[in-house]
Amino acid sequence: MIELPVQPFRFRKGKLYLLDQRLLPQQKVWVECSSALDVFYAIRQMVVRGAPVIGTVAAYGLYLEARRQKREGKLTKEKIQKAAALLLSARPTAVNLAWAVERSLKALEGSDDWMEALLEEARRQEEENIAWTEKISLIGAEIIPDNAKILTICNTGPLATGGYGTALGAIIFAWNQGKKLEIYACETRPYLQGARLTAWELKQLKIPVTLITDGMAAWTMEKKGINLVLVGADRIALNGDTANKIGTLGLAILAHHFGIPFYPVAPLSSFDRNLSSGKEIAIEERDPREVLFIGNTPIAPQGTKVFNPAFDVTPSKLITGIITEEGLISQPLEKNIREALKR
Amino acid sequence: MIELPVQPFRFRKGKLYLLDQRLLPQQKVWVECSSALDVFYAIRQMVVRGAPVIGTVAAYGLYLEARRQKREGKLTKEKIQKAAALLLSARPTAVNLAWAVERSLKALEGSDDWMEALLEEARRQEEENIAWTEKISLIGAEIIPDNAKILTICNTGPLATGGYGTALGAIIFAWNQGKKLEIYACETRPYLQGARLTAWELKQLKIPVTLITDGMAAWTMEKKGINLVLVGADRIALNGDTANKIGTLGLAILAHHFGIPFYPVAPLSSFDRNLSSGKEIAIEERDPREVLFIGNTPIAPQGTKVFNPAFDVTPSKLITGIITEEGLISQPLEKNIREALKR
Repeated sequence: MIELPVQPFRFRKGKLYLLDQRLLPQQKVWVECSSALDVFYAIRQMVVRGAPVIGTVAAYGLYLEARRQKREGKLTKEKIQKAAALLLSARPTAVNLAWAVERSLKALEGSDDWMEALLEEARRQEEENIAWTEKISLIGAEIIPDNAKILTICNTGPLATGGYGTALGAIIFAWNQGKKLEIYACETRPYLQGARLTAWELKQLKIPVTLITDGMAAWTMEKKGINLVLVGADRIALNGDTANKIGTLGLAILAHHFGIPFYPVAPLSSFDRNLSSGKEIAIEERDPREVLFIGNTPIAPQGTKVFNPAFDVTPSKLITGIITEEGLISQPLEKNIREALKR
Repeated sequence: MIELPVQPFRFRKGKLYLLDQRLLPQQKVWVECSSALDVFYAIRQMVVRGAPVIGTVAAYGLYLEARRQKREGKLTKEKIQKAAALLLSARPTAVNLAWAVERSLKALEGSDDWMEALLEEARRQEEENIAWTEKISLIGAEIIPDNAKILTICNTGPLATGGYGTALGAIIFAWNQGKKLEIYACETRPYLQGARLTAWELKQLKIPVTLITDGMAAWTMEKKGINLVLVGADRIALNGDTANKIGTLGLAILAHHFGIPFYPVAPLSSFDRNLSSGKEIAIEERDPREVLFIGNTPIAPQGTKVFNPAFDVTPSKLITGIITEEGLISQPLEKNIREALKR
C-alpha cells in the first residue's frame, strides 16, 4: 500500500479539522468545524476543495450539525434537511457534493439514531474514497506508458479526494510501479492549486514535477514532447461533456491539435444522470478578488472588471476516454457511459 | 490626434528616465539611467519591456554611454561597439532591439560628432515610434468591426511602443472612431503585463476591459463570443512564423479551433530577414523566480523546478494575417511577406 503524503481532513472527538488549502504549502493550519455552517463556509471559501473530498466533508458537516442541534436539545429532521440544502449550495458545479449529501439524508431513513446514522455514513464515504481512488489509480496507471510526459491541471491528488487521487492517483501508482515519468503541472490561476498543492504533493513523493504557468501549456506540449494529458472532473454529462477546473477546455483543444491523448479521471459518482449534455451544467462564477489579488498583493488596477468562471466544459468529442474506478470508458462516450452506468 | 495616456520613458537633461513597469499600476517610479550598463539592466530586468520600445531605449543607452565615456575622456568607437553588444544581449528574442542598435552604430559612420549622431538617431527612433504606431493603428482599426469582442495578451500599447501601440493601438484608434468594443485581456503570467499594464492603459482611456486569467481564454472565446484575437510580435520569420509572449501559440490554436480571426500586429522592423522559419528563433528562458513568486509572495514549494520560456512561436498556418504599418499582409504569408519587404 502506498502511504498517503497528506490528508485534507481529520475527524477527532466529534470535531472536523480541515487542512487550510488556501495557505499551503507555506503554512499548515487546521480549521476546526463544529456545525454545518462552519463546513459550508470552509467549502465556499475553499479551505477545502476538490470535487470528491468536499462531498465527504459535507457528510461530516451534516453529522456535526445534528450533534450541535442535539446538544441544544432541538434536533429535527427538518433542520437536518435545511442544513443539507445549505451545504449543497456551497459550490454549484461539482456533482459529488449533491451526491454525498443525498446519501447522508437517505441514511436517516428508517434509522432510530440519526446522529449515529450520519456519522456512519460520513465514515463510510471517507473509507470509500480510499477504496475507489485506489481502483481508479490502478486503472489509470495502466494507461500511463513508461517515459510518459504528462501535463495536468489543478489538484487531483490526496488533498482533492481524501484518498490517493484521480489523475494524480494514477500518476502516483504508475510511479510506484517503476515507470519513468515527468509531470508538468499548470499553476492553475486564479487559485494556484497546481503550484501550491500538486507541486507540493508530487515533491513529497519525489515524483519529478515541473511547474508552468497556464499560458505555457501549448509551448510545453510542443517543446517538451507531452504525450498524455490527465485531468480531474467536477461533473460529467451523459454524453461525456465534462466540467472541470477552468483551463481544462483549453488543454483539451491543445491536446487535440497536437494529437495527444486527453483523459479525465473521475469516479462514476461524478456522472450526472440528470444531464444529457454539458450545456446544462451550472458554472460557478467566483469573486473577482481571486483574480485581482494574489494573497494580499493587488495585481491589477482597482475596480478592474473580471470574468472569473471556476470551471469550463470540455465537449465529449475532444476526450479520448474517461478513466473510472470500474474501467476505461472509450469513445463513443455517449453509448459507453450509458452502459457503464447500467452495470 | 489621440493623447497618449502614458509614456514609458523620458529623456531630460542628458539622462534617461524609465517608468518602472514592474511596479505599475500600484506605483509610478522613474528609474534614472546614465550609462549603457544602466539601460542593459533595465531592459534585462524588465523595468522597460515591449519589443518596439526596448529598441529605442537601447539607442538612448548607446548615447548615454558615449556621453559617459566622453566625460571620462576616453570615448572610442571600440567602446561604443562593446556597449552595443552588451545592449543587444539584454533580451535575445525581440528583433527590434538588434535593429535599433544596428541603426545607431550605422549613424556613427561618416559622423564627426559621435554623441550628436547617437542622440539624433535615438530621437529619430522615438519620433518614428509615434509615426509608425499611428499608421499601424489606423490600418488595424479598419480590420476591427463595430461591436468587436477582442481577446488580447500581454501589453502592446503605449508602454510597449513609446507610441500608440500595435494591437492596443489598433483598439485605441477603433474606439476613437466610435466603434463599440469589449476587450478581454489575458493577465499574462508570469509577468502579468495584461493585468498590470493593458488593463491600466485601457481603463485610463475608458475602453471597456475585462480581465481573465490565461487559462480562461478558451471558455471566454466560447461563452463571450470573442470574434477577434489581436496580439503583438517580438520576431517574425520570413514564412510568417511569429514569436510573441508566451501564451500566444495557445491563443492561436484556440482561435483556429473556434474559427476566430487571429492577427499579430507588428511593424516591418519585427520581420527578421535572416530567418526563413520560426524554428530558428532563439526563445529566452527567464528566472524561475518569476513563476515561483508573485511580488514577494511565494506561490509554490521552495525549490520547485520551473519551465519559464518568455515567448512561444505561432506557426504561420494559424495566422489569419499580419497587420503592419504598410498594410495587411494576408495569406499565403510566405509569398506576401517577401513582397511586402521588397517594397
